[in-house]
Amino acid sequence: MRTGADLVAIRERKPLVHQITNYVVMNETANATLSLGALPVMAHAIEEVEEMASVAGALVLNIGTLSARWIEAMLLAARAANRAGAPVVLDPVGAGATTLRTETAQRILEVSEIAVVRGNQAEVATLAGRQAEIRGVESIGAADSSAELAKVAASALGCVVSVTGPVDHVSDGERSITVSNGHELLGTVSGTGCMSTAITGCYLAVAADRPLEAAAEALVAFGVAGEDAAKDAKGPGTFHANLYDALYNLDPSALDERARVEKS
Amino acid sequence: MRTGADLVAIRERKPLVHQITNYVVMNETANATLSLGALPVMAHAIEEVEEMASVAGALVLNIGTLSARWIEAMLLAARAANRAGAPVVLDPVGAGATTLRTETAQRILEVSEIAVVRGNQAEVATLAGRQAEIRGVESIGAADSSAELAKVAASALGCVVSVTGPVDHVSDGERSITVSNGHELLGTVSGTGCMSTAITGCYLAVAADRPLEAAAEALVAFGVAGEDAAKDAKGPGTFHANLYDALYNLDPSALDERARVEKS
Amino acid sequence: MRTGADLVAIRERKPLVHQITNYVVMNETANATLSLGALPVMAHAIEEVEEMASVAGALVLNIGTLSARWIEAMLLAARAANRAGAPVVLDPVGAGATTLRTETAQRILEVSEIAVVRGNQAEVATLAGRQAEIRGVESIGAADSSAELAKVAASALGCVVSVTGPVDHVSDGERSITVSNGHELLGTVSGTGCMSTAITGCYLAVAADRPLEAAAEALVAFGVAGEDAAKDAKGPGTFHANLYDALYNLDPSALDERARVEKS
Repeated sequence: MRTGADLVAIRERKPLVHQITNYVVMNETANATLSLGALPVMAHAIEEVEEMASVAGALVLNIGTLSARWIEAMLLAARAANRAGAPVVLDPVGAGATTLRTETAQRILEVSEIAVVRGNQAEVATLAGRQAEIRGVESIGAADSSAELAKVAASALGCVVSVTGPVDHVSDGERSITVSNGHELLGTVSGTGCMSTAITGCYLAVAADRPLEAAAEALVAFGVAGEDAAKDAKGPGTFHANLYDALYNLDPSALDERARVEKS
Repeated sequence: MRTGADLVAIRERKPLVHQITNYVVMNETANATLSLGALPVMAHAIEEVEEMASVAGALVLNIGTLSARWIEAMLLAARAANRAGAPVVLDPVGAGATTLRTETAQRILEVSEIAVVRGNQAEVATLAGRQAEIRGVESIGAADSSAELAKVAASALGCVVSVTGPVDHVSDGERSITVSNGHELLGTVSGTGCMSTAITGCYLAVAADRPLEAAAEALVAFGVAGEDAAKDAKGPGTFHANLYDALYNLDPSALDERARVEKS
Repeated sequence: MRTGADLVAIRERKPLVHQITNYVVMNETANATLSLGALPVMAHAIEEVEEMASVAGALVLNIGTLSARWIEAMLLAARAANRAGAPVVLDPVGAGATTLRTETAQRILEVSEIAVVRGNQAEVATLAGRQAEIRGVESIGAADSSAELAKVAASALGCVVSVTGPVDHVSDGERSITVSNGHELLGTVSGTGCMSTAITGCYLAVAADRPLEAAAEALVAFGVAGEDAAKDAKGPGTFHANLYDALYNLDPSALDERARVEKS
């Protein structure tokens, strides 16, 4: 784990992170990306997604507010990123809640190579073919523990899987990392899951050859920022503003010491 | 009025509030819903809106940034919610400003059963066939007082109508409730009207059989949160962040005492 | 320069500023417009853009997240604003980054009369046919200085051009104004460039006959607000909230004295 060193690399190289994401969180994931130190760009037109994805350091696909043209754009962008060798992160928001979302996430996984899937317990369980309950985009529960789920899903999907929640579990099917950083206020702000996906994209852009570590490091960095943001927050609104401050002020030299991770 | 008890019910049951709303305020209404204690979900694809609306506790339709496909999705979702027995709230943003907006709001009211219309004076006057002036989405004035307008519109439209402004007026055509909670800074943040519509959806989800009271309780809760948010705000930006804190920290046991309502 | 007097006019007349802008910043530009004292409205449907643009005080076009229908809407709106005599501002977000963005900005400039183009160095250089490098929507550099670029581009495009950056340069091809107000934290929040474009629209709405001055005054007002917002900011998040407070609290009587401008 090189959470601090990779953050330094992000801030020095300022990789372009192309995001095709939902309307609800576009500003939030752009600002999380920028606060961390990378450059966000949003582009969804089928006429330009391949051109943009092919020059990006990473591509983030988030299915939170789908429609037919956006699905087409995501598929085009994912394949362009694959051709250009840029890692792709998939956030299957609401998979399990509607057929459209489940099938879209499955189709993206089928036709392109995804480096990391980042979702909640129910979303990941749905994609792995396991039992789960979801209400809208909120996981209500799953038959498996998150630790088991990350491992099973990684094997089933053939990529790294991050299952986030009060404790996060990241696995490539063989090796697993548990990340216990974070704060409960993260659950009170819409789009913090999406932000963690965007930050996974930032880390992948500088550590594409180590996707398991990059995915875990992103959750450490975001979790530590959440801990800092909570310090003088009075609720979700001030916490939300503090979160960008905290990402911007993350001290790379302290990150690895503050990481609360377990490997197995 | 059971503003406090219904808030407790919202926080315990965490109803899913499906919102098809405008691009400007999606994050804001999602966060207002979440801060209050319910679960927001945004979904607008015609392929999934019926599936999502049919499992929701309430549906919120907001016409603030329309296009042809979104109108189609709203009509499909409204009828699906009707079939499933989920209450529907309509926010006719900018009705009166363009023909498209006026006609879309009218069409939604014609083809589906709306529980509550929540709008400003000019928007509601337009739908009730009364004189009014609107500049963009801002009411400049109307021939009728808001109190008269709420009553007249409720009779004309056959549903509960909330006319919000410095003082809010809610009516089912026979009974009316005036809500004087709130703060002038609410008028300085884009989307606070849309947030009050979303919160109306949250209250309806736990009190669908009492739509007049639910609509008034929502405005009390939101108004009290506005009063709290204003306390150490220095302008629209800090007020906006404080507003989510205030919704999150609303004390159910104090709400009914703080309500400034008059019934007639 | 009448930065203070024109702000008073904005707050008194509350001009409607119609914005067809990107998904990432819609809430932010609406709130910047409202905090300053004008009335924002977002409308992009081809069925209503002409009706809305024809009653607006100014039209703002921002190509940050394009698609085919939105391009069509922008062209319709621009011509409707031209017919109605309302000034149009163009923000060519990402021109130079993809062919779609470059060609769309060029087409808007060809088929309608633009009062002011507001962009970063690379975007403006692209439109003026000069060498530049862009990464996503971030300018990496250009062959010309910003001062030269503003002048050259204004002549080439036949309108006022604002090139913003650490120091801003505004020119109509003959006269130029340099604006040194602002703060480096403005570069850490997504959409501050878009906000400065929206505020350019607000100033044009009350000073359409003085586009060079209006464009420079907008950058002075926004820059001064940025200076105020930075005072007790701890990073991009609190700065962002403070920025709306600062716009709302701008003191017109102090603005001209605080302006750091040079004319040439």
